[in-house]
Amino acid sequence: MSKIRTYERFYSAGRDKLLSKVQEAYERFKETRTFEFPVWLYGQPVGKLFKMEVEDCPQFGDTAYVEMDSARTAFVAIDMQTDFCGKSGYVDVMGYDLSLTASCIAPIKSVFDTVRGTDIKVIHTREGHEPDLSDAPFNKVLRSKIIGEGVGIGDIPEGGLGRLLVRGETNWDITEELYPVEGEYVVDKAGKGAFGSSTIHMILKNLGVTHLVLSGITTDVCVHTIMREANDLGYWCILLKDCTGATDYGNYESAVKSIKMQGGVFGNVSDSKRFIEAVEGANLK
Amino acid sequence: MSKIRTYERFYSAGRDKLLSKVQEAYERFKETRTFEFPVWLYGQPVGKLFKMEVEDCPQFGDTAYVEMDSARTAFVAIDMQTDFCGKSGYVDVMGYDLSLTASCIAPIKSVFDTVRGTDIKVIHTREGHEPDLSDAPFNKVLRSKIIGEGVGIGDIPEGGLGRLLVRGETNWDITEELYPVEGEYVVDKAGKGAFGSSTIHMILKNLGVTHLVLSGITTDVCVHTIMREANDLGYWCILLKDCTGATDYGNYESAVKSIKMQGGVFGNVSDSKRFIEAVEGANLK
Amino acid sequence: MSKIRTYERFYSAGRDKLLSKVQEAYERFKETRTFEFPVWLYGQPVGKLFKMEVEDCPQFGDTAYVEMDSARTAFVAIDMQTDFCGKSGYVDVMGYDLSLTASCIAPIKSVFDTVRGTDIKVIHTREGHEPDLSDAPFNKVLRSKIIGEGVGIGDIPEGGLGRLLVRGETNWDITEELYPVEGEYVVDKAGKGAFGSSTIHMILKNLGVTHLVLSGITTDVCVHTIMREANDLGYWCILLKDCTGATDYGNYESAVKSIKMQGGVFGNVSDSKRFIEAVEGANLK
Amino acid sequence: MSKIRTYERFYSAGRDKLLSKVQEAYERFKETRTFEFPVWLYGQPVGKLFKMEVEDCPQFGDTAYVEMDSARTAFVAIDMQTDFCGKSGYVDVMGYDLSLTASCIAPIKSVFDTVRGTDIKVIHTREGHEPDLSDAPFNKVLRSKIIGEGVGIGDIPEGGLGRLLVRGETNWDITEELYPVEGEYVVDKAGKGAFGSSTIHMILKNLGVTHLVLSGITTDVCVHTIMREANDLGYWCILLKDCTGATDYGNYESAVKSIKMQGGVFGNVSDSKRFIEAVEGANLK
Repeated sequence: MSKIRTYERFYSAGRDKLLSKVQEAYERFKETRTFEFPVWLYGQPVGKLFKMEVEDCPQFGDTAYVEMDSARTAFVAIDMQTDFCGKSGYVDVMGYDLSLTASCIAPIKSVFDTVRGTDIKVIHTREGHEPDLSDAPFNKVLRSKIIGEGVGIGDIPEGGLGRLLVRGETNWDITEELYPVEGEYVVDKAGKGAFGSSTIHMILKNLGVTHLVLSGITTDVCVHTIMREANDLGYWCILLKDCTGATDYGNYESAVKSIKMQGGVFGNVSDSKRFIEAVEGANLK
Repeated sequence: MSKIRTYERFYSAGRDKLLSKVQEAYERFKETRTFEFPVWLYGQPVGKLFKMEVEDCPQFGDTAYVEMDSARTAFVAIDMQTDFCGKSGYVDVMGYDLSLTASCIAPIKSVFDTVRGTDIKVIHTREGHEPDLSDAPFNKVLRSKIIGEGVGIGDIPEGGLGRLLVRGETNWDITEELYPVEGEYVVDKAGKGAFGSSTIHMILKNLGVTHLVLSGITTDVCVHTIMREANDLGYWCILLKDCTGATDYGNYESAVKSIKMQGGVFGNVSDSKRFIEAVEGANLK
Repeated sequence: MSKIRTYERFYSAGRDKLLSKVQEAYERFKETRTFEFPVWLYGQPVGKLFKMEVEDCPQFGDTAYVEMDSARTAFVAIDMQTDFCGKSGYVDVMGYDLSLTASCIAPIKSVFDTVRGTDIKVIHTREGHEPDLSDAPFNKVLRSKIIGEGVGIGDIPEGGLGRLLVRGETNWDITEELYPVEGEYVVDKAGKGAFGSSTIHMILKNLGVTHLVLSGITTDVCVHTIMREANDLGYWCILLKDCTGATDYGNYESAVKSIKMQGGVFGNVSDSKRFIEAVEGANLK
Repeated sequence: MSKIRTYERFYSAGRDKLLSKVQEAYERFKETRTFEFPVWLYGQPVGKLFKMEVEDCPQFGDTAYVEMDSARTAFVAIDMQTDFCGKSGYVDVMGYDLSLTASCIAPIKSVFDTVRGTDIKVIHTREGHEPDLSDAPFNKVLRSKIIGEGVGIGDIPEGGLGRLLVRGETNWDITEELYPVEGEYVVDKAGKGAFGSSTIHMILKNLGVTHLVLSGITTDVCVHTIMREANDLGYWCILLKDCTGATDYGNYESAVKSIKMQGGVFGNVSDSKRFIEAVEGANLK
């Protein structure tokens, strides 16, 4: 018989150490309903600790709190580009109702107003392809052309602003209301996700980020993909549900619900009001 | 003014070449409703070409076809482990209705019966952590303990088969009915996704795979995450909707629908019946 | 006893199949000294098959051949930027002899003259950081400032052309003699390597590349890192030893020798003359 | 004219902030010759700060110090497997002099004796393929068979202990003298590198590691590849030069020298004596 991997001699100490930390945090959670910032893991906070309310955690109907270090927290606005929420952009060309994706502009703007000037980092992402489409899979471009009835990624729609989903085009850039300001970070990515094909790993590491507060469009596509990637790597992720939207309302609702399954399988869900209250309560400015 | 990236001198030839291939495929699609196997990209088929019907493509209500090379196609059964569909496994301990995830065992078995003995590859995945939990993020373990009311990843539930979601435990292994047979492949992964933290890149490359036919559990979590990762890299992905299940039926339905948005934002959707018909029709055995 | 991974029931068929393909290729190699293009794996060639001589393979003193498909081959010119081979660039500022890195410009130019107009792909890479240095690790920037005696990555040296190793600066761009032309590809990367933090995965996949012919600077740093990453993923890599250079000649020599160890632990080594002969002999234009 | 990426409106604040931190650290380095632990980035130490001497930094002939947090430091022993340093293993079968790779066993053992019982983490890696060779690139297996004159990866050499470089085989496991003990970590990897195809990302993140002290075999292959990957991601890497070895002494020397170029292009170099002194001086037990 072949035994492929045996760990008899060295595995339980590492496991027991982690499980004892988990047990401590679990006992604390029962008392406080709070996922406390794990100092044992990350060290003392670099900024200021604050906590925000999250919903339907651990069970639907319950309320819990996530504590985070302001200087290790990033507010991420995903793909708030004209292509996804503006006129003559990609989503508009495909015929979807723009209000579904554009409705989150105002709440995201409120969050920007709150976090700008604090030590919370702001990261923007943009989906788009090189002008030579070298990083665009053939099937992705083909499908977009079919659904766009002849006008897909890399093409210029009639009356459009530029080539769809192509870097450097006006339609590809971030919508004016949410445009990055000095000191914010921008990640360009070629896919729905970002890890594995961009420098987002490095940026989060260079900034010392442990907690990601997520927003953007579309909920079930790019936002969820990035949330999944980050969650798999152990980042604490919280989606602000009013700061996101999808091309289909039912998909939006399920994308939000899906996060909450299994006690928070992809992290937690909150909204801009609660995040703003938490940040303001911390007096970070 | 800083111009960060300028491509004026060399970008359009690559773009035009790709777009002309896309245009050709688009014209063919209009005639044939088929995503033909792109020989210009992959070379002549290594096995036999065959095509299967996919639903709601490009628009809801439409039917289309995906053509694939049998020897470059993999049927992937994601996380069909006791922990996700069997008694005393992880999902059972969390209190979900097992029939939601176990109902896909029979259709997957039918697909196995059909593809075994052909040159279509079979790949299984298993989610699970090292016995020392070294690859388990603290927050993942903590959340599982909270939702499991004290019994989470790495713990042994009362009357359980072993530590939950831990490699090597009986509950972690693939359910008996769908157990791998000689010549099939198994990818162990620590997260919901697999790319970036397993050798799945290498396996797909070593096998020359271009098309993935996906099944498994749970639809909105692991199946969708792997589908997203693969789709971002240009793999052609088709989910068999009866060969998958989720802990919540609404989330299952939206996960399926979400794939079909934007002309197939994550690929296509079909079912076991249509896949089996396609494979049988190709006389691959 | 815990058995972590057991494969008794399904592992040998996959292994035996691969090993029989390896055995065939091994028998062919003994006859022909050639690593033949594996049609069983990649399918029929898309372009034209041709073979080039490589040195010291399998043993030092031996000669072998690598057969490749022109349309699946990419010639990669790594980091031929002013920062690495031109006046007032990064390497110049650190005080290294520019002739060590600039001497490969002419042979790379010869290769360009040969492959341009064929279906062999040309890929350029550039190392550099975002203007906000968000993707530059703190220790990398610090070390560069120390060795540059106060002038490091992100700084403008006296009499310099722009900020060192920063995207968009004149010094960061590709040297005039080797500037990309229409239809060539450019990968921007923040590290010495490229896989994992750029879209190079997608580009190689979209182009269907199986074989990489490598050149550029510096041999032991960026060229070797990319070669290692690609080799680990199964790409066939061949370094053209006169088309590369390092800041230290001994390191250059060892970097070349290191590839040849263990029968070609990172691939193979050849030179521009042999590659040009091979390409010209194939009449690809 | 297409301007692909313009950052005029938001890029300098992030850059200036990083450069001011770099400037501070540079001034401190000039005074102290020490790369101090960057508390601004990582937070207060979780364990105890200590510093070790590194050689030829920033210039050849100079001495510098790296300060690290014991609880955020990992000592990594790379591929100390029978296959690379023991009788009838892979390296032995290829005909290399085993003393070149086995000579580092004793110094690594001394380091183990010193760090075991402290809060410095110990991580072992093992290179090896699944028993079905699914993660072994065809060209890698073929080359090994050629150099092994018919006996390569996946084969059992005459008088051998098992299949070469295959997980689960005796020859593949870690050599007895350096076998992991309780509470240590083991990363299995299919390539020379580990990032991108293993869970090493997660393990380092879960352990909060910032500094890697590296050892193992072979210097120019697996050790260097992992060092490059980690360095690109911003980990502080220090190779202990007597705790490593290569199949060719010249390659070993150049691999060590290469790290020191450009002020430490891949990190720093020290030895077991200095690391042991540093750890003992910190009274961590």
